[in-house]
Amino acid sequence: MNATANSVFQFKKMLKNLDKCMTKASAFADHKKFDVNILTTYRLAPDMFDFVKQVQSSCDVAKFCAAYLSAQTAPKHEDTETTWAQLHERVQKVVTYLDGFKAADFENASKAKVKPGWAKGQWIEGDNYLNEVAIPNFYFHIMAAYAILRHAGVDIGKQDYLGELSFKS
Amino acid sequence: MNATANSVFQFKKMLKNLDKCMTKASAFADHKKFDVNILTTYRLAPDMFDFVKQVQSSCDVAKFCAAYLSAQTAPKHEDTETTWAQLHERVQKVVTYLDGFKAADFENASKAKVKPGWAKGQWIEGDNYLNEVAIPNFYFHIMAAYAILRHAGVDIGKQDYLGELSFKS
Repeated sequence: MNATANSVFQFKKMLKNLDKCMTKASAFADHKKFDVNILTTYRLAPDMFDFVKQVQSSCDVAKFCAAYLSAQTAPKHEDTETTWAQLHERVQKVVTYLDGFKAADFENASKAKVKPGWAKGQWIEGDNYLNEVAIPNFYFHIMAAYAILRHAGVDIGKQDYLGELSFKS
Repeated sequence: MNATANSVFQFKKMLKNLDKCMTKASAFADHKKFDVNILTTYRLAPDMFDFVKQVQSSCDVAKFCAAYLSAQTAPKHEDTETTWAQLHERVQKVVTYLDGFKAADFENASKAKVKPGWAKGQWIEGDNYLNEVAIPNFYFHIMAAYAILRHAGVDIGKQDYLGELSFKS
């Protein structure tokens, strides 16, 4: 399978793992008797994104990576989430979107000319976009979301972050 | 270029970016008149790795990924670092090790049978090792190191994390 397809499918898996971590955060909040929505505005530093924006960014990096590298147009998702339930929905929307892709959609990805909206008209080759922009940015935000939950005391670990691995005996 | 080579070279770049972030942390410590080595034991949560271990882990994931996927034996690096200077040296050792690889070394990577020391004799196919284990783990630790510095107030941002990007106009 090509590198882009592998990455996009891995992003989908990581978003599902994040979704499960959020479910564990809800259970933690119930147990500790606080409203889980309090965590939506948690941050690792005052000038870093809060939890909501880390989840939205994780979703967007995955969505735009799949769209740009298959020459499709990404669906619009307004950044209006303020509750845990809405964040679950946002993640699910992107998982469903990514479910629609197959490896063949990314056959021409490595040489694609990618022009992200924020790049002021500049472009970057598909392979470089994947390795320099999409992968580091995706893991930046997904790990920030995870770390916010860890910092808040939620009982999750590396296995929740990674999910199941394809080891064989 | 094959996906493994792209990832290994990107890991090298990210380690250099981390090295620069650590240099900025030293300047921050000087400015605030504290010993930068105080940050070596900082953590995002009491049951997460401290800064030293996050840097060591970033180095190890990159090193073992390159070694396993080129059928080589990774050099041993004892985890004895306790100072900022020693952490710079550790990063430099791995950057130098990765400098020795060329894309052709990873030609057979995707189908390699990878048996990490911690996997209790189980194995995983090269492509799955790269996507499910190496990439998510590498970014987990490199982002944790970055986030510890951000949490401590060091004046770094996403651009320091990502480094220079290959955009063209």
